Amino acid sequence: MSEKLEQLKERLGEVADITRAASVLGWDQQVNMPPQGHEARGQQLATLSKIAQEKFISDEVGRLIDDLKQELNGAETDDAAMLRVAARDYDKAKRVPPSFIAEQAIVTSAAFNAWVEAKGKSDFSIFQPHLEKVLELVRKYISFFPPADHPYDTLLDDYEPGMKTADVKAIFSNLRPRQVELIKAITSTKQVKADFLYKKYNEKKLIDFGVDVITRFGYDWSRGRQDKAPHPFETTFSVNDVRITTRYELDNPLATLFSTMHESGHAMYEQGVNPSYERTPLASGTSLAVHESQSRMWENLVGRSLPFWEHFYPAFKKAFPAQLDGVSLKAFYKAINKVEPSLIRVNADEATYNLHIMLRLELEIGMVEGRIAVKDLPEIWNSKMQEYLGITPPNDAKGVLQDIHWSGGSIGYFSTYALGNLVSAQLWEKINEEIPDLSDQIRKGNFAELLAWLRKNIHQHGHKYEPQQLVEMVTGSKITPEPYVRYLTKKYGEIYGL
Amino acid sequence: MSEKLEQLKERLGEVADITRAASVLGWDQQVNMPPQGHEARGQQLATLSKIAQEKFISDEVGRLIDDLKQELNGAETDDAAMLRVAARDYDKAKRVPPSFIAEQAIVTSAAFNAWVEAKGKSDFSIFQPHLEKVLELVRKYISFFPPADHPYDTLLDDYEPGMKTADVKAIFSNLRPRQVELIKAITSTKQVKADFLYKKYNEKKLIDFGVDVITRFGYDWSRGRQDKAPHPFETTFSVNDVRITTRYELDNPLATLFSTMHESGHAMYEQGVNPSYERTPLASGTSLAVHESQSRMWENLVGRSLPFWEHFYPAFKKAFPAQLDGVSLKAFYKAINKVEPSLIRVNADEATYNLHIMLRLELEIGMVEGRIAVKDLPEIWNSKMQEYLGITPPNDAKGVLQDIHWSGGSIGYFSTYALGNLVSAQLWEKINEEIPDLSDQIRKGNFAELLAWLRKNIHQHGHKYEPQQLVEMVTGSKITPEPYVRYLTKKYGEIYGL
Repeated sequence: MSEKLEQLKERLGEVADITRAASVLGWDQQVNMPPQGHEARGQQLATLSKIAQEKFISDEVGRLIDDLKQELNGAETDDAAMLRVAARDYDKAKRVPPSFIAEQAIVTSAAFNAWVEAKGKSDFSIFQPHLEKVLELVRKYISFFPPADHPYDTLLDDYEPGMKTADVKAIFSNLRPRQVELIKAITSTKQVKADFLYKKYNEKKLIDFGVDVITRFGYDWSRGRQDKAPHPFETTFSVNDVRITTRYELDNPLATLFSTMHESGHAMYEQGVNPSYERTPLASGTSLAVHESQSRMWENLVGRSLPFWEHFYPAFKKAFPAQLDGVSLKAFYKAINKVEPSLIRVNADEATYNLHIMLRLELEIGMVEGRIAVKDLPEIWNSKMQEYLGITPPNDAKGVLQDIHWSGGSIGYFSTYALGNLVSAQLWEKINEEIPDLSDQIRKGNFAELLAWLRKNIHQHGHKYEPQQLVEMVTGSKITPEPYVRYLTKKYGEIYGL
Repeated sequence: MSEKLEQLKERLGEVADITRAASVLGWDQQVNMPPQGHEARGQQLATLSKIAQEKFISDEVGRLIDDLKQELNGAETDDAAMLRVAARDYDKAKRVPPSFIAEQAIVTSAAFNAWVEAKGKSDFSIFQPHLEKVLELVRKYISFFPPADHPYDTLLDDYEPGMKTADVKAIFSNLRPRQVELIKAITSTKQVKADFLYKKYNEKKLIDFGVDVITRFGYDWSRGRQDKAPHPFETTFSVNDVRITTRYELDNPLATLFSTMHESGHAMYEQGVNPSYERTPLASGTSLAVHESQSRMWENLVGRSLPFWEHFYPAFKKAFPAQLDGVSLKAFYKAINKVEPSLIRVNADEATYNLHIMLRLELEIGMVEGRIAVKDLPEIWNSKMQEYLGITPPNDAKGVLQDIHWSGGSIGYFSTYALGNLVSAQLWEKINEEIPDLSDQIRKGNFAELLAWLRKNIHQHGHKYEPQQLVEMVTGSKITPEPYVRYLTKKYGEIYGL
């Protein structure tokens, strides 16, 4: 390894160490921290983040990157990929002045507090002036970058490298009418019964069942753990320490189980990254959409499938005999896949979920283009909900105020959730081609070959390939909605007898 | 506040943030980390420690300290105290070259592994060459500093600022014959029965009882928490997040309870530091001995006292009726205070504990002076054990290899444990003068006035005063063994009818 490459790696390694130390502090904040610990913790996190940023955008790192670009020019090695990612991140980070980051921290901190209050009181006017400031900052952020085909491209690229607004719009335009049509067909037929899912389920038993399931999936407990937290999430401290959290919701008990499967999908991705990428910019999943494809695959394509429950239902019913008394496997399977247009994105079923995303994307693009004023968001939100899902929120708390993202300045994030769904189905078709008896394996509770396929084709590469490049390499085409539409149509056609 | 003072505080604040972030990582490593997380965590901790050190010994910090020394010269303010501590730490840190720190990390890491193996096989020869290297490094460390009255002073000063080897020797010379005499008197009289302490006690009930006790003491759970870990310890992330750990030992179940009281003493000290000292070098206890005085006070002077158990014994007996069937309060009180010369320091009772320390101090001073060769340690250890405690270790694992300290290069540390015992008794006499009905308060389970006294006289000051200065301010004299001897003589005189 050239001396300069070694120097760059050592510097990036330090940045990675600090960033991951900050992740430990963030995890602890959610999982363990006593109530009064917040202020000092916020200060400690701010300091770590500042130091990581300073160390990363140092002139020396810039010089090393420039020199190495010539040395590694055109190479297809891991080092060349590492350099590409480092150079891209460096360029982005250099464009954003520290004063902007400080301003953003202040604005989003106030916006977050206002959002909490606004949501609590279901009063958008409390949040409106803050969101206007956030939007101003977002526009300012865009101005630091060279003009793109569309200003929204700059935002999207932070979450989904290489993805263009036009691509996402094309994918969603193709998808939307077909999902709307499917939902109409479903809602006009006889509804399935699901009340038994909302009885009281013992929390510990549910969590234990989830632990058994993801152990079978292949989540490696010697390199991870699960704790309770207010919101389920996955976090990575190293390839050998990838943790998840879960929670118990009284009014939606089975969410504990499905969210554990979901987070295990994120975690197995991170546990599967090539260990030689540790402490480099390649050491994590390549994008939010590809990450979400993994979590959704284990949660939905596996965890909400009939073969999965053919294996697990007897044990599940044994764990909850009173709740599931007289409920057949088929009835249970239908219930956990019940389609019902609903107000809240995070509770949406597989068939309606993407429509929630499309609505948000249109609003975000409209705001960034200046076509949609912040003050008009509630009205536009409600009319789009009616158009796409046939329901209208009774108030802003259950409408435009439901998501945290905008309060933190995360504009450009939402579409990765829907893209993740598409990628999960696209990979799933490929996997089933290459593992023709996958359903039988799942029916036997055997996930080893599935995980091995994902490790080999997706996980190990970490950040080496851009998401579109990776999806094309593996499936033969860039992200496309067709497999997802085929998947939905087949699955819900069978469930609802369409 | 002058601009330079503000600048210095901001820099020291960053260093404090990084150091405390490292403490979070260290705590997590003991409490939560999955087995395979060690390597990356070690790397992350090394990076944080390196950055904290670099930031602290920067030329700019040095210039600010120098400039402010003139500005704050002679002032008695908190800022002046902060500057004194910062200047002292800076001077120490500057003297030690980074190359030495790196070498030390390598040598002590190997020495630790050798110690684990040597202890496991009870074979000192495995550890000997490593301890020789550690000792070489310790001598080299001393050489970085100006000559002191005694070379060991330099080591001692790192743990007990301002304390001299001659002072400690004088204190211990005064104390040793009197403790030896007391132990002889005790062991030649009728022994107390304590077998019921070593029955099987339910772990959860013991931990719950400990939680109740320290809640009553005044440990603030809104600013802390207790977890299980392989070794009990206290750790501070901020004045508002001070955590403790406990463990359950099958062969010594009640240690769970006493170690919880012990750690709560450390924790209440840290919780009581003036919050305005946060992110400055004043924001923690002033020395190991004063820290230990707090933990020992709550564990021994409170937790092993008759009034304490007059209050708690009924509830304790109710929690463990089978184990304590027929055991009177007096019998229980005598049992938990049973004096018995034993091999292992950490299990030693109040009357014998200090002798374990004196033995170690003599060996350390001998090694540093060059009078004692590492290879002769086992023999000298064993003969001193016979001389002080009348017993001889059957092997090195239960003798010279029992403590972890030397393997990590911590030479100079041990005496602070014994000094902590002395300070606890010295403070206790003063407290009982000022709160004449303290025993009655404890008998009623009321610790509020005691904690308030400690907060006011000790805790709030954090690192503002050097330990000897603080002890003298509060009790009228520097650290002296007299109160401890009076305490032991009275307590054990009553228990053993001497």
